[in-house]
Amino acid sequence: MKATQIVLADRPKGIPTADVFRFEEIELPNLKDGEVLVQPTYISVDPYMRGRMNDMESYSPPFQLNVPIQGRVVGKVTDSKSDKLKVGDIVIGTLPWATKSVQSASSLEKIDASLVPASYYLGILGTPGLTAYFGLMDIGKPKAGETVVISGAAGAVGMVVGQIAKIQGCRVVGLAGSDEKVNLLKDQFGYDEVINYKTIGRGLFEAIQTYCPNKVDIYFDNVGAEISDMIMMNINFRARVIICGQIALYNTPQITRGLRFLPMVLTRSALIKGFIVHDYKDQFPEGMQQLTTWIKEGKLHFKETIIHGFDKLPEAFLGLFAGHNVGKMLVEVE
Amino acid sequence: MKATQIVLADRPKGIPTADVFRFEEIELPNLKDGEVLVQPTYISVDPYMRGRMNDMESYSPPFQLNVPIQGRVVGKVTDSKSDKLKVGDIVIGTLPWATKSVQSASSLEKIDASLVPASYYLGILGTPGLTAYFGLMDIGKPKAGETVVISGAAGAVGMVVGQIAKIQGCRVVGLAGSDEKVNLLKDQFGYDEVINYKTIGRGLFEAIQTYCPNKVDIYFDNVGAEISDMIMMNINFRARVIICGQIALYNTPQITRGLRFLPMVLTRSALIKGFIVHDYKDQFPEGMQQLTTWIKEGKLHFKETIIHGFDKLPEAFLGLFAGHNVGKMLVEVE
Repeated sequence: MKATQIVLADRPKGIPTADVFRFEEIELPNLKDGEVLVQPTYISVDPYMRGRMNDMESYSPPFQLNVPIQGRVVGKVTDSKSDKLKVGDIVIGTLPWATKSVQSASSLEKIDASLVPASYYLGILGTPGLTAYFGLMDIGKPKAGETVVISGAAGAVGMVVGQIAKIQGCRVVGLAGSDEKVNLLKDQFGYDEVINYKTIGRGLFEAIQTYCPNKVDIYFDNVGAEISDMIMMNINFRARVIICGQIALYNTPQITRGLRFLPMVLTRSALIKGFIVHDYKDQFPEGMQQLTTWIKEGKLHFKETIIHGFDKLPEAFLGLFAGHNVGKMLVEVE
Repeated sequence: MKATQIVLADRPKGIPTADVFRFEEIELPNLKDGEVLVQPTYISVDPYMRGRMNDMESYSPPFQLNVPIQGRVVGKVTDSKSDKLKVGDIVIGTLPWATKSVQSASSLEKIDASLVPASYYLGILGTPGLTAYFGLMDIGKPKAGETVVISGAAGAVGMVVGQIAKIQGCRVVGLAGSDEKVNLLKDQFGYDEVINYKTIGRGLFEAIQTYCPNKVDIYFDNVGAEISDMIMMNINFRARVIICGQIALYNTPQITRGLRFLPMVLTRSALIKGFIVHDYKDQFPEGMQQLTTWIKEGKLHFKETIIHGFDKLPEAFLGLFAGHNVGKMLVEVE
């Protein structure tokens, strides 16, 4: 049986272009005992994947050249030689970017798509949602009345962080890159204030001062660079800063320079923590249960940007760095 | 009774000069019940005092203009109207920079100068020693075999951090500003390697790579600026960074620019914490007991740079920023 896969053809320098990906036709092996054939329904594209395209050690190992890109996928079982999974089951796993693949059933998890859309397992009930939940709750430890600032506030993680912070009784100020996103977060996601960092330009520092009159108690950073510089200069005593992403710097191979904020960290007795959600793996069931409860109670909402067609995967991925997504960016395969 | 005091005459811009201080003759009030007359023996000068000279909120409030500088003092009681303290007692407290002062006995603590020199209560058994102990042990959580890097390694705090790290079985690499300090730390304080950051110049990054072949697990920062930039670029996974001081930046009124290291904090899942020793106030007795034990066991040593004469206080303070001290900088009053 034939399938199409997408391999990393070259390591990007700076902003990746479509030619770092190569589509290949492959012949799939026959199923062995314990294996299933999986056909993706939704394939997740995530900013952290940019880091894996570099040949540099990080918390996840680099993608190998000429090997399929791997990522989170929701798919359905279309053939099975396993007792664990049967044809028609909806599963999630870390799979190659391929139109079909043969997987060991034990590497897949069956999901219940009756409560929430199956795609939510790649978003609000997947890595982004759990990242938001554990990053904010365990490192941020929000208290009612505190001010929480979120960069990348309309992204898959940021959108959830802001809503959880509101549930905790915090003042929530977001930063996003378009008026459409600003309005969405204010009108539908309960953000107290949202700053369009693109149009505000050099007024960002004053805007943060205005919108955070009691300074910034928690900064949930998905973006880095100039935005973080301005927020770090406005942190409160005992501020907690969660470094969850640095998307503004992922495509900059050289190390750039920014404001030296360590004196603020010292005088404000602040905490900065680089965040890796997999440190919380043992608590994922608890996190998913809490997120599911909030969704059922109508306290937590989600948005997805769904691009259609397997061949659009590179375009969807590249769109993350141009801010094309509102909420979770996904590719729907059929 | 007359005394001489030193007040803050002006807020320094940049590097302080002698004219920010003014000496004043004052008439002391008579002792009231519960009060004692204290004559300083040792007056502590500390880098953090530079921050208090700015009119800026921090963990300790700014010094007021035309009011005596306050700091830690070891002195003796020369007159008493208190049951708690008698003439001849050796005490420690936060006192004005003055040749004599009237103090409430309850604001002073009697110290035992039979075990260690009385001056040690301003150094290894005082704020610097406790800062080293709690900063390294509670935030750093050193494990045997880990690499600990210390900037300002020959200062009152750094010198103690390095020795405690050695007691914990760590590899210890220091940075100091003269060959005399480098040799002292290697020969008498057990540092594995010490870098003279002044002579090494642009070779600092490579020197850290060479001396920290397994990268930096704990960075105890007393200095900030370029030195920290280079060390942050060499942190290991799950590194802990204790921001204890930023002396290189204290005299720079504007915010300077340096390397953006947050992507390293993210990919290495690192922790950065601004450190304030007074958060550990309840545990000070435990800390002092541990430090005293190590001193008695001969595992912990200390150095002081003692300047003689009350009138030399401004000079001693200013000398901190020129690196004139090895270990604790003190003024001995008589």
